[in-house]
Amino acid sequence: MTPEPYRFPLNRFMSDKAFNRIQKFSKNLKTPCLVLDLDIIKSKYKELKKELPASTIFYALKANPHDEIVLLLNDLGSHFDVASTHELDQLLRLGVSPERISYGNTIKKRDDVEYFFDKGVRLFVTDSFEDLRNIADKAPGANVFFRILTDGTGSDWPLSRKFGAHPDVVYSLILKAKEWGLSPFGISFHVGSQQRDIGQWDEALARCKYLFDAASEAGIRLKMINLGGGFPANYLEQTNPVINYTSEIKRFVEEDFADEHPLIYLEPGRSIVGDAGVLVSEIIRVSKKTKSSYQPWVFLDVGKFGGLIETIDESIRFPIYVDKAGKEEEVILAGPTCDSMDILYEKFKYTVPHSIEEGDRVYILTTGAYTQSYCSINFNGFPPIRAYIIK
Amino acid sequence: MTPEPYRFPLNRFMSDKAFNRIQKFSKNLKTPCLVLDLDIIKSKYKELKKELPASTIFYALKANPHDEIVLLLNDLGSHFDVASTHELDQLLRLGVSPERISYGNTIKKRDDVEYFFDKGVRLFVTDSFEDLRNIADKAPGANVFFRILTDGTGSDWPLSRKFGAHPDVVYSLILKAKEWGLSPFGISFHVGSQQRDIGQWDEALARCKYLFDAASEAGIRLKMINLGGGFPANYLEQTNPVINYTSEIKRFVEEDFADEHPLIYLEPGRSIVGDAGVLVSEIIRVSKKTKSSYQPWVFLDVGKFGGLIETIDESIRFPIYVDKAGKEEEVILAGPTCDSMDILYEKFKYTVPHSIEEGDRVYILTTGAYTQSYCSINFNGFPPIRAYIIK
Repeated sequence: MTPEPYRFPLNRFMSDKAFNRIQKFSKNLKTPCLVLDLDIIKSKYKELKKELPASTIFYALKANPHDEIVLLLNDLGSHFDVASTHELDQLLRLGVSPERISYGNTIKKRDDVEYFFDKGVRLFVTDSFEDLRNIADKAPGANVFFRILTDGTGSDWPLSRKFGAHPDVVYSLILKAKEWGLSPFGISFHVGSQQRDIGQWDEALARCKYLFDAASEAGIRLKMINLGGGFPANYLEQTNPVINYTSEIKRFVEEDFADEHPLIYLEPGRSIVGDAGVLVSEIIRVSKKTKSSYQPWVFLDVGKFGGLIETIDESIRFPIYVDKAGKEEEVILAGPTCDSMDILYEKFKYTVPHSIEEGDRVYILTTGAYTQSYCSINFNGFPPIRAYIIK
Repeated sequence: MTPEPYRFPLNRFMSDKAFNRIQKFSKNLKTPCLVLDLDIIKSKYKELKKELPASTIFYALKANPHDEIVLLLNDLGSHFDVASTHELDQLLRLGVSPERISYGNTIKKRDDVEYFFDKGVRLFVTDSFEDLRNIADKAPGANVFFRILTDGTGSDWPLSRKFGAHPDVVYSLILKAKEWGLSPFGISFHVGSQQRDIGQWDEALARCKYLFDAASEAGIRLKMINLGGGFPANYLEQTNPVINYTSEIKRFVEEDFADEHPLIYLEPGRSIVGDAGVLVSEIIRVSKKTKSSYQPWVFLDVGKFGGLIETIDESIRFPIYVDKAGKEEEVILAGPTCDSMDILYEKFKYTVPHSIEEGDRVYILTTGAYTQSYCSINFNGFPPIRAYIIK
C-alpha cells in the first residue's frame, strides 16, 4: 500500500518561475487567499487572439470580475460579456466603452434591458419571444443574436437546456426581430465549459450555417457567429492545447462558410483566467477516523463555500501541490466548515507526501476562474477569500 | 396533460396570518429578499424547550446568523453552537456570555482554540488526537466532548464521515483527554440534517451508552450527551411533528440511561429558523425551448448562488407559492445566473398556475435556514440577498 516517491508535475500547470513568485509573494499572507498573476492572463489573451486574429474576444466577466483583470483586458482591446446590471456598472466605472459590451445573459428583466440600452449597450443575446419583445420595446433597433441549444456533451461542467432555444424557435425569433424593428445580427451557442471534444464546435457551427441560409432565404443577412466559451483551463484531466481548438474551429468555419466568413465572436472566461490563479491554503488537520483506516482526512482552511464550489460531484479536479517530497499516500480532502457537503475529493483520491502536517501550505492551482466570486458571503462565519494581484 | 385546478396548501407550511403579514411587508421591497418572522423562531424554540425541558439548547448559529435572531434566542436563554472565530466575535459583540458558547467545529486551527479559550469559552468538541492535543495545550482544563461517527441514513441532507471518529478511537480519546489534564465531559453525534428516521437517534444513543460504560470502567464519569441537530423543518417532503421526535428521544434515553440521566444538549438550527423565512422572488421569464414542449422554463431572480444552494441534487424541496389560482402546469424552475448549474428543480416537477407571467412574485417558503449566509459574494455580479426581520 505504500506508493513510490513521487513528484507532482508542477510545471504541467504553471512554470516554476511563476509558481515561485506566487509562493514567495504569499509567504506571509494569511490563508486562505487567492493570488492572481496578471502576466499569465495577458499571455492567455494574446495567445487566443494570435490564433484567431479576425475574432472579437468578449471576456466572460463572471469567470473573474477582479478590477485589475478588467483594466488589463480593456487595455489589450478585449470586449466584455456581461451577465447583470451590477457587472455593467463595474465595467463603466472602470472606463470600458459600452460599445465593447455584450449583454450575454438570456435571463434578464425588462427594466434591465432598458438600463443597458440607456448606458449605451447595443448588443443583446436572446432565446425567447418574451425576452425579444422586451428588447424590441426597451432597446429599439439594437443588434440581437440568438442562442441555440446545445447539449454540452464532452464538457466537464456541462451546460444544459437552460440557455438557448431549438433552431426552429430561433428561426422564428429571427423573423420576429426584424418585424419588431431590431437588427438580427448573429447566432450564438456554448458547447459547455471545459469542453474537451473539439467536434462539438463543428456540430454547432453546422446548425449556425443552416440558420444563416434559412435567414438569407427570408431576406435577412446574419453577420456574426458567437462561439461562446468552453476553451479549457489546465486541470488534472488532460486537455488539448488552445491551438488544437483554434485550428479546428478555423477549419470548421472554412468548410461551412467558404463563400463569406462571418464575424467570429468568442466569450472565453475560464481559459483566460483559470491558469493564472493559485489558491493558497493551510492544512488544519490530518487525522484518521478509525484505527485501521489508511486514508487520512486532510482538512484545509478553504473548501466548497470558500470558492471551490466547482468540486461539486468532483467535477473539476484542481491540481494540488504541497512543497514537500517523499513517499505519497492517498488522502481525502475536505474544507473547514461544519457542513458535511464541504468535502473536496473523496471518490477521486489525491496523493500527497506522507510527511504533511498541520500548518503546511497547500497550493491549489488553476483557481483563477469561478472561485473568488462564488464564495459564500459568511457561511459558518468565514469571510470570502481575499484576492491579491501580481503584476 | 391538463391538471385540475389546484390550490397550494399554504397553511401546511405557514399560517395564513403569518404569510399575509410577510406578503404585505414585502410588497414594495426589491426582490429577491428574505423575510424572517421572529415570532415563528420564538415559538419553535419554546416548543422544543417545552418538550425537552431538562435539555440545554445550543442554537447552531450557522443555520442563520442574523443579529436579531441571536438577540432573541439569547433573551430566551439559548446557548450557542459556534463554528469559527468570526461567529464567536459576533456573539460576544451581541453580549452573549462565553459560558453559553460551545466550539462545535471539529476542524479548528490551534490558534483558534487559544482564541476561544482566551475569550472565556470552556466547551470544545473533538474527534482526533491532533485536535485534542491542541485543546490540551491551548485550553487547559477545558470540558471536551467527543463526536462519534454516524452514517446519516434517512436524512435529506446527509452528513458523512467528515465529522466524528469510530467509537474505538473515541474511547482512546477519552482516556487521553484525562491524561492530558482536560475534563472528558460527554459524547456527541449528529444523525444528519432534516433526519426523518427517528430510530437513528436510538442507534446513536446506544453507542453513547457503550462509551459511558467503558469510560466508567476506566474511572471516568461522562456527564453529557449532545444529540446534535437533525430536527426537521417543513419542506415539501412530509415529516413528523417535533413532539414525535422528542417523545421518542426521551424514551430512548430512559431505556439506555435509566439509572442516571445524562445532561442532554441539543444543537438545532434548521428546525428553529427554517420555517420562519420566506424568500420573496420575482419571475423574470416564462419561456419554452421548443415549439412542442409543454413544460415551460420559469426563471426566477434568485437561484442556487443567491441562497438556494441546498437545491443541489434537488435535495431540499422548498414549498413554493404563487398567489394565483387556476389550472396548474408542470414547470422547470431555474435561477438568473449564466451558470447552467443554476437550475432549482428539473427532475422534480413543480406545478404552478398556468396564468403566471413575468413580474409575478414567487414565495419560497421554509427558507429561514442555510440560505442568506450561503449566498455567493457577487457571482455574475449579483449581490447577496438582503434579509429583513419582522417582529
